[in-house]
Amino acid sequence: MAPENAQLLSVGIDFGGTNLRIAAYTPETEILSSIATPTRLKAGPMAVVDDMCNAVKQLLEMHGEGREFVGVGVGSPGPLELPAGRLHAPPNLPGWDGFNLLEEVTKQLHVPILIEGDANVAALAEFVLGTGRSKGVDSLCMLTLGTGVGSGLILDGKLWHGATGMGGEAGHITIDPDGPLCGCGNHGCLEALASATALTNYAEKLIADGKADGLQRLESEQGSLSAFDIAQAAQQGDEGALAVYAKTGRALGIGIANLINILNLPLYVIGGGVVNSWDLLAPHIFAEIESRSYVYALTAPGRAAASGVSCGGTLVLPAELGSDAGLLGACILPLHGLKSRRASA
Amino acid sequence: MAPENAQLLSVGIDFGGTNLRIAAYTPETEILSSIATPTRLKAGPMAVVDDMCNAVKQLLEMHGEGREFVGVGVGSPGPLELPAGRLHAPPNLPGWDGFNLLEEVTKQLHVPILIEGDANVAALAEFVLGTGRSKGVDSLCMLTLGTGVGSGLILDGKLWHGATGMGGEAGHITIDPDGPLCGCGNHGCLEALASATALTNYAEKLIADGKADGLQRLESEQGSLSAFDIAQAAQQGDEGALAVYAKTGRALGIGIANLINILNLPLYVIGGGVVNSWDLLAPHIFAEIESRSYVYALTAPGRAAASGVSCGGTLVLPAELGSDAGLLGACILPLHGLKSRRASA
Repeated sequence: MAPENAQLLSVGIDFGGTNLRIAAYTPETEILSSIATPTRLKAGPMAVVDDMCNAVKQLLEMHGEGREFVGVGVGSPGPLELPAGRLHAPPNLPGWDGFNLLEEVTKQLHVPILIEGDANVAALAEFVLGTGRSKGVDSLCMLTLGTGVGSGLILDGKLWHGATGMGGEAGHITIDPDGPLCGCGNHGCLEALASATALTNYAEKLIADGKADGLQRLESEQGSLSAFDIAQAAQQGDEGALAVYAKTGRALGIGIANLINILNLPLYVIGGGVVNSWDLLAPHIFAEIESRSYVYALTAPGRAAASGVSCGGTLVLPAELGSDAGLLGACILPLHGLKSRRASA
Repeated sequence: MAPENAQLLSVGIDFGGTNLRIAAYTPETEILSSIATPTRLKAGPMAVVDDMCNAVKQLLEMHGEGREFVGVGVGSPGPLELPAGRLHAPPNLPGWDGFNLLEEVTKQLHVPILIEGDANVAALAEFVLGTGRSKGVDSLCMLTLGTGVGSGLILDGKLWHGATGMGGEAGHITIDPDGPLCGCGNHGCLEALASATALTNYAEKLIADGKADGLQRLESEQGSLSAFDIAQAAQQGDEGALAVYAKTGRALGIGIANLINILNLPLYVIGGGVVNSWDLLAPHIFAEIESRSYVYALTAPGRAAASGVSCGGTLVLPAELGSDAGLLGACILPLHGLKSRRASA
């Protein structure tokens, strides 16, 4: 049994389509140690659940003694139904349709388990440990640009689930009704226009149309072209690469302007690898927000005072946490719940 | 002094750019009596405030005795800053920029005043007395199609204000980035594509392009063309009129699909005069939602059970309350607040 005033301990599981990362965490030291392993998708859902549970047990053996264990947090790909904890035709997890991840993990571990969509745990991490903390806001929306565009909403200090846990899918708002096909079946989603995948796809299209000679040379030299390569070319002034970032930034700006008009939150955070190119994206993002959101026009930083609106200004910022946001968010999920329960007790 | 267990009384002010309506209300009888008068915009803000306050005093004299008066609710055009109660460059109220309506009304009346945007009070009315009540939901988004497209969000039983009271402006999400100019300065807003104004504008465009002979004949016979005329022509199978409703329905469908993906609410309600043509709009609305929202595809009524999602289904419905929604919402605003405060006490 843990002594009175023992350090709180949680375990977080960052469940990705490619990798599985599990970490033990305390608020004082953050991540104590972590286990990373490829996600054995081909072996089926139960094999992945076994890997998760074994890693949790291992971490608890290593770090449990003398600490008060509060539970396990899981960040899972979606669509994830909450509070049930069941997956519904997740595009990156073939064979998982209808699988109740929460139930299966609970059966093996017999400890408190909290589960959330991966973009939601990243938003929670950014809220508790990143920009949310440094700006002192009570609500934010986070967009994570990766293979797809994930998004999570914190409203009044709580993750917004919506009716079935599928709230906060801002990656699938329509930016261009006749735009490229998205994995979700829609055309012109934010994800189809502003993910790292969309960014490289657009570069390929420019090359195929003969409109990006510099990128074409780079691709034939290297044999491939990543978002990072395109960013480097853009930094060096390559016109094709700059056009790719302009298009991505504009799509993001339209999406964020929509979110500002609908939600009027104090903070919008952009995360994911693409954020390393924030200086390439930002001018295009802000040009769209300025012209498409009168709420932003009234409440932009430095503008709010001039327009007589009492607020800290509507902030749009790159994430402070890097690629660990998902793992950190899973770790703090059980602690965050505990904190709010304690606060209201 | 009111006796114990006295009937609760509130007064609501529906402040429109054209008309001012003030009503006395009790939960038992709903509207007791109401006063309607043109909004004296040319006489300036203080004249309008005088008209509001005189009507409130008159209604309190008529109905106050023996009842417990709980306060005045005001539904005001926006952008309205909350909690301050100040207007910011409202497009339909020239000369009101920076005017603190809440402060000026409070100065004259010395009673509790609650103020909200007009689309918010309509959403509250629909939540408490309309579809929200009949469907038993705790959250909804209401879009009101009129001269513009207003919108209000109820999340977890409460009006969502956002950081500065300007949340819930779904009328200004971008549907078509290169679409027609909106009054807010953006291009291709939902308001610029699906308001009654947009609907008649699009009919005029089709006539000018020679693509709506039936509507052209109708317009030259009548000298003008209203949304109602276009609806009637569409009901009779006029192709141009059907094209107008198809375009409006598609824009609405894209907007609602975005809201479903972002918020995953149990209910989306469409109000305003255009709703009389629900049967013309609905097929186009649902075609877009079906193809653009995988959240809807998983949770549509009748679909949720088949896809294994536990929920009542994502509902998209016409409003139950008619043109009185704004006035009713203003009336129940002080009572709704009272109810929640009492419930938590």
